[in-house]
Parts: sequence; C-alpha cells; structure tokens
Amino acid sequence: MSKQQLEVLGRDGADGCCPGLLTAPLDEDRAETLAKVFKALGDPVRLRLLSLIASRAGGEVCVCDLTPAFDLSQPTISHHLKLLKQAGLIDSERRGTWVYYRLLPETTDQLAAILTRPGALLPESAGAAS
Amino acid sequence: MSKQQLEVLGRDGADGCCPGLLTAPLDEDRAETLAKVFKALGDPVRLRLLSLIASRAGGEVCVCDLTPAFDLSQPTISHHLKLLKQAGLIDSERRGTWVYYRLLPETTDQLAAILTRPGALLPESAGAAS
Repeated sequence: MSKQQLEVLGRDGADGCCPGLLTAPLDEDRAETLAKVFKALGDPVRLRLLSLIASRAGGEVCVCDLTPAFDLSQPTISHHLKLLKQAGLIDSERRGTWVYYRLLPETTDQLAAILTRPGALLPESAGAAS
Repeated sequence: MSKQQLEVLGRDGADGCCPGLLTAPLDEDRAETLAKVFKALGDPVRLRLLSLIASRAGGEVCVCDLTPAFDLSQPTISHHLKLLKQAGLIDSERRGTWVYYRLLPETTDQLAAILTRPGALLPESAGAAS
C-alpha cells in the first residue's frame, strides 16, 4: 500500500519538477492521495516520530529507541509508525528482535516540491512573499 | 488565532532558514502547532480549495466561484475554508456581498522549508535520494 501511494504521489516528479498544489487546481484523485499523506503528518506524535527518525545520524532508528521518548504504550507507538509507513513517509525492516525505521526522503521531497511556489527558492524566499 | 499560529510556525524562519522536521527532533509545542497545519491539509476538499485559491491568476477567489466547483453545500465549503484560515494557510476579506480568499504563501513556504532536507535543492534532488 505504501509503495502504491508513493508511486501516485511521485507521478509528476520523475524529473524533479513540481506541478503541485499551488500552480493548478488539483484533481480529485490526486487530492485524495495527497490528503492521506498530509493526514499522516497531522498528528503531533507522528510528527515527532518522523523527526526522530529523519534526524538520526546513520539514517535509521530502532523502535526500541523510539518508545522511551514518549509517554505512550508500545502498541500506540507502533500504530502511529504504521500510519507513517502506510503514507509512504517511512519504511521499516525487522532484524532479529527489533524493527528499524528509516525516512523515505522521496516522499518528503515530493511534499516540499508540491508546496513550493513556482520560481521560489526557499532559502531566499523569506520576505519576498506578498 | 490564525495570526498566532502563523507566528509560531514562522518563528524559526525569519532569516529564511529552515531548522525543520528532518534535521532535529521536534519539541512537543512545535509538533502540536505543525500538526494543526498538516491536519488542515489532510482532507481532499480542503486541498482542492487551497489549490483553487493558490493557482488563481490575480491571487484571490470569490467564495461564489469556489462553491460551484464542488458537489457540496455552501456551509460545508465555508467550514473547510474556515479550517484553512485557522491554520494560517489562507486569509479572507469581505467586500460587499462576497468573501474573497487568498493564499498566505508565508505558511506554505514554511511548510516547504520544514520538509526540505539540508542541502537538498528540490529541482535537482530527484534521484539523489538514498
């Protein structure tokens, strides 16, 4: 499921270009697909999990290192991780006892591209907004 | 409320730089703030409304031009527009009979920056992902 969503999300982005949210009206199918990914990001625990995974040196995090950062049960954390994975934002691999998670940067790159205005270079765009 | 959220969202971005989601673990407060904005985007009708508003030549759209694009009641459309406005993604102005909506590009710029990997230039990043 995550692979499928990722392909749909990335269908316009093979050349790195970004006909996105801000340049033309979204069609219904694409809006449905994109909304699922944004919905996965629309929760503070999932955002914190994603940032912990994405910012980890080495690129992956053992679930055993994620759970202690939250005052939540292991099943709750696992549920949030599953939603991030279904949205194509992270991937996982079981090795021995533990599951290891890593960012799928293709998806966050696509979201960033979709949210970028045509001609706007982000590091220089502050102050240029109307 | 939208103004307040916008300020919090933009607090790291005054110089256009982007210590974001992918570079360091988010703290709880910032995760709460960001999650509200992503949650506003986590609905296909709201994404379509936002793209209709953002892509309109001239920069603003009358609510009277938005409603016919959807098979939904005016109150439902107004509710979705209210949520986008509360998230700091759009602003509105009443002139005469109608309300006109426009994108707040500062917010989408910030989201794009937050989702951009350090050193990743979006137009060149395709294929460079691990």
